[in-house]
Amino acid sequence: MSQTVLSSATKEVVIGFGRPFVMIGERINPTGRQLLAEEMKNGDFSRVEADALAQVSAGAQMLDVNAGIPLADEPALLAQAIQLVQSVTDVPISIDSSIIEALEAGLNVYQGKALVNSVTGEDEVMERVLPLVAKHGAGVVAISNDETGISEDPDVRFAVAKKIVDRAADHGIPKDDVVVDPLVMPIGAVGQAGQQAFRLIHRLREELQVNTTCGASNVSFGLPNRHVVTGTFLAMAVGAGMTSAIMNPLHAEVLSAVKAADVLAGTDVNCAAWIAANRDPNAAEGARGGREGRRRRRPQ
Amino acid sequence: MSQTVLSSATKEVVIGFGRPFVMIGERINPTGRQLLAEEMKNGDFSRVEADALAQVSAGAQMLDVNAGIPLADEPALLAQAIQLVQSVTDVPISIDSSIIEALEAGLNVYQGKALVNSVTGEDEVMERVLPLVAKHGAGVVAISNDETGISEDPDVRFAVAKKIVDRAADHGIPKDDVVVDPLVMPIGAVGQAGQQAFRLIHRLREELQVNTTCGASNVSFGLPNRHVVTGTFLAMAVGAGMTSAIMNPLHAEVLSAVKAADVLAGTDVNCAAWIAANRDPNAAEGARGGREGRRRRRPQ
Repeated sequence: MSQTVLSSATKEVVIGFGRPFVMIGERINPTGRQLLAEEMKNGDFSRVEADALAQVSAGAQMLDVNAGIPLADEPALLAQAIQLVQSVTDVPISIDSSIIEALEAGLNVYQGKALVNSVTGEDEVMERVLPLVAKHGAGVVAISNDETGISEDPDVRFAVAKKIVDRAADHGIPKDDVVVDPLVMPIGAVGQAGQQAFRLIHRLREELQVNTTCGASNVSFGLPNRHVVTGTFLAMAVGAGMTSAIMNPLHAEVLSAVKAADVLAGTDVNCAAWIAANRDPNAAEGARGGREGRRRRRPQ
Repeated sequence: MSQTVLSSATKEVVIGFGRPFVMIGERINPTGRQLLAEEMKNGDFSRVEADALAQVSAGAQMLDVNAGIPLADEPALLAQAIQLVQSVTDVPISIDSSIIEALEAGLNVYQGKALVNSVTGEDEVMERVLPLVAKHGAGVVAISNDETGISEDPDVRFAVAKKIVDRAADHGIPKDDVVVDPLVMPIGAVGQAGQQAFRLIHRLREELQVNTTCGASNVSFGLPNRHVVTGTFLAMAVGAGMTSAIMNPLHAEVLSAVKAADVLAGTDVNCAAWIAANRDPNAAEGARGGREGRRRRRPQ
């Protein structure tokens, strides 16, 4: 029963087996968002603030914050964005950068226990990121690729994930604080991407017993009606055992699939969250759990 | 690799591992549809015809036909409905009744290889239904309950399913022609209903190696926004290994979840069906499988 406890100054969030799925809002990321990149570079963080508030309002329990802008001072921008987000919301943050100095700058200003996003299985990266994670007592996202690249074989990715978990332990980071990202490829380019991910997520949960996360939007890249594909992927991933994702809760199809998956996985106890979110006297059909509900195949 | 081959006079449909999910339209069923029941009882089958055409048009690869109306001549009505449906569509039919005489009347007029819905694990039911299935060379839906009722323990249900498969073999019915229904309860009444179903579906596929189906709508009975719950359930069931369902393809949320699940399970090769169904030059975002598609967590 892995439990990854993360916090802001005032609020704790637990990613864990048997708990509601944790949605980590993906929006604060200038990759592919030219306007946001320009604004952040010029010191205008108004859109960062708006994105933070909108995602938390939609139900994000955590926020990913990324300031990866070419030719910009990423460490300074990331620290500034984190401070701003922590001043307007109380959710824990996933500090997202591939640059060690930016991760360090972010951790230095962060209040609470952050999730560091990310470390890979490359020796050099592990030896730079893991000591920083240990020093700050943070959690860390472990991406299952290494010097040899991203294997299409889920068993190889499993071995890479295990290597990172073992190396983290050498640095004093408990397995509970490592959240593995199985690396989900676009299904339009890699037809087996879904099955690979589900198989790996299942093994990570059953054998390695770690929490998992992924960048969910990528799976539907290039496809029409993509938010339905992303939402359906997330539901199937929940079924396979995934416990969190970096995703966009502002898309209705994605949000509703995750919340329905919580119902079906039994982590939305008595369907209370679902009923509260969808309460509408005209939408409910029949009473809950009545005699008719036990009839088989009552047509809708 | 179980393959259940069913047919009409002119068309074959295969329920099988590694194939697109088979949607069996549930609408032609007077249970809970008073108007349809009245019409059928009075010999008016216009709604049956309309329901058949609409479901096939929406993508149903098979149709379930039920004529269970209190105080009516069910065998005659079922035979009449089947003949009508076979005259206006070419999809194979699931002949649905709990009355042996109705199943027999349906099979006697049916052209092709039908799916008989259903047999339970009760000795008396098996000894009446299985010889009929064998005589007509039909397939059969095996419901995993018996004289002791519906167990909440998926392992007990697995044992019942295995008993039916073994008994069917005694009657000369191959395992490939038995499609097991794990019996999905309403999640609003039984909080573990989803997990029970997914676990059982997984075991039925991996250990017993049989195809599976279920009456999908029942899972969301009594909940608001229920079609999203049903669709999400189906996607998660596909992830667990389910290969068909008796369901309503006319609900957009249900249909799109099943079709997206085919994409993610890798049975919609090259996402061809998804792209064809959702083609809209304004809806596609970016080109398929381009360089950007491999970027991790590109925000939507």
